[in-house]
Amino acid sequence: MSQATQHTAQRVTPELYVEIQQFYASQMPLLEERRLVEFLETFTEDCTLEHVPFGWRFDGREQLLKEMSARRGDASKPRAEETSARRAREENIAYYDGLVYRYWFDRMLITPAEDGTVKVRYQAIVSMTDAQGKVSFEPTTVVEDVLVRENGALLTRSRVVTHDSAQWADKIHNPN
Amino acid sequence: MSQATQHTAQRVTPELYVEIQQFYASQMPLLEERRLVEFLETFTEDCTLEHVPFGWRFDGREQLLKEMSARRGDASKPRAEETSARRAREENIAYYDGLVYRYWFDRMLITPAEDGTVKVRYQAIVSMTDAQGKVSFEPTTVVEDVLVRENGALLTRSRVVTHDSAQWADKIHNPN
Amino acid sequence: MSQATQHTAQRVTPELYVEIQQFYASQMPLLEERRLVEFLETFTEDCTLEHVPFGWRFDGREQLLKEMSARRGDASKPRAEETSARRAREENIAYYDGLVYRYWFDRMLITPAEDGTVKVRYQAIVSMTDAQGKVSFEPTTVVEDVLVRENGALLTRSRVVTHDSAQWADKIHNPN
Repeated sequence: MSQATQHTAQRVTPELYVEIQQFYASQMPLLEERRLVEFLETFTEDCTLEHVPFGWRFDGREQLLKEMSARRGDASKPRAEETSARRAREENIAYYDGLVYRYWFDRMLITPAEDGTVKVRYQAIVSMTDAQGKVSFEPTTVVEDVLVRENGALLTRSRVVTHDSAQWADKIHNPN
Repeated sequence: MSQATQHTAQRVTPELYVEIQQFYASQMPLLEERRLVEFLETFTEDCTLEHVPFGWRFDGREQLLKEMSARRGDASKPRAEETSARRAREENIAYYDGLVYRYWFDRMLITPAEDGTVKVRYQAIVSMTDAQGKVSFEPTTVVEDVLVRENGALLTRSRVVTHDSAQWADKIHNPN
Repeated sequence: MSQATQHTAQRVTPELYVEIQQFYASQMPLLEERRLVEFLETFTEDCTLEHVPFGWRFDGREQLLKEMSARRGDASKPRAEETSARRAREENIAYYDGLVYRYWFDRMLITPAEDGTVKVRYQAIVSMTDAQGKVSFEPTTVVEDVLVRENGALLTRSRVVTHDSAQWADKIHNPN
């Protein structure tokens, strides 16, 4: 199948396009501001979030809230010691302490399905700014979301984050 | 208020959405190309631009033009000595000399008000590419603009740039 | 001519805006995934791709395929030795070996012409993530595309990449 044909099949109305842009522009700042309960209200109750390869899968808002509450830390605290995502989980370290992190999305490909769900594929990179203004970046990823509509509003039902580096979870996350 | 409700309230027509994207795509390259008078024509005469925390506030096109003319420098000149934003102001250094800077915006949340003004919230990061091709990034920020319509065209009436690092103005801006 | 006037002149329908966003969201991942034949099917048969200043110009899909096949490498191979874009061409080095590269576009300014073609101007930066998760960035660029419609679908007829560093082609592309 040629790309041209594929492109035509992925017809998205401007209204849906804008709604989805506004959805992410509302959703992701809640995570960045550590407003975790509100962030998870933009996911369905039975949502899933998965990191591949060699990562973790979380089922439902409750599991996600527990994980995020333990890991997302506090921008106003001192930075955590150097650690990786894997070790942070094993040793229960809030490895985003002392960091303002921001998600940068691009190349959003929106594919509505006949059942009313919407697949959204995008690439993402996370920037981290520390108190002194030092900027670093996490390895790039490609994300695939499935959005569903409940009571008129879009919610994320599943998110699969594919990391571009297979060793992402063992990389030092916040090098000094 | 749940995020879902908030989302519904922020209804943006596709026409306005596209107009705003095109507005920024016209506005910001003028700053990057140091076409400062033209850049400021995309702001209202009585515009304000503020950097928080611990930054500066500029009132009106004239003040902004004076500040930007002194600071924005020339990409074709040699790079300025290492300095911070604060020291550059105190010692009148054109601290963008020798650098091509580009603004990267993301997560644009558009909120039209009943009086016809539009609030636009986004995150921004500035890349700097020097003559040798070295790339560095300024600390991340969150920006809140108020746009107004004059004679049919959108203009920026106010811009508040909140820096993610409280020490942003004292950071070495262009490390060698 | 004031910016405001220029802005009004660049009227883009929401349908075209979304179609163009989806076009790039389909096109560029093909390059990132090294699906070069499919990538080039999103260009016209007689397309041109040019890197300025001091770069190269390629004419037609066949020339482009030959160049890209030799240069784009394989993310699963070991990284190439340190080299520049210019030396990689002279010595026939696949200088993207061992790297996942992603294109980040911003500030897309869309200008439809009366003949049905569309000019699209944007800035771009390429991130490179290696197997260990190290992230680096190529120097920033500004890109000008001309899109045409063939059998209903958009295709890129020409792409001019203007590099923000005049020495981009001699920069070490993949520093260890």
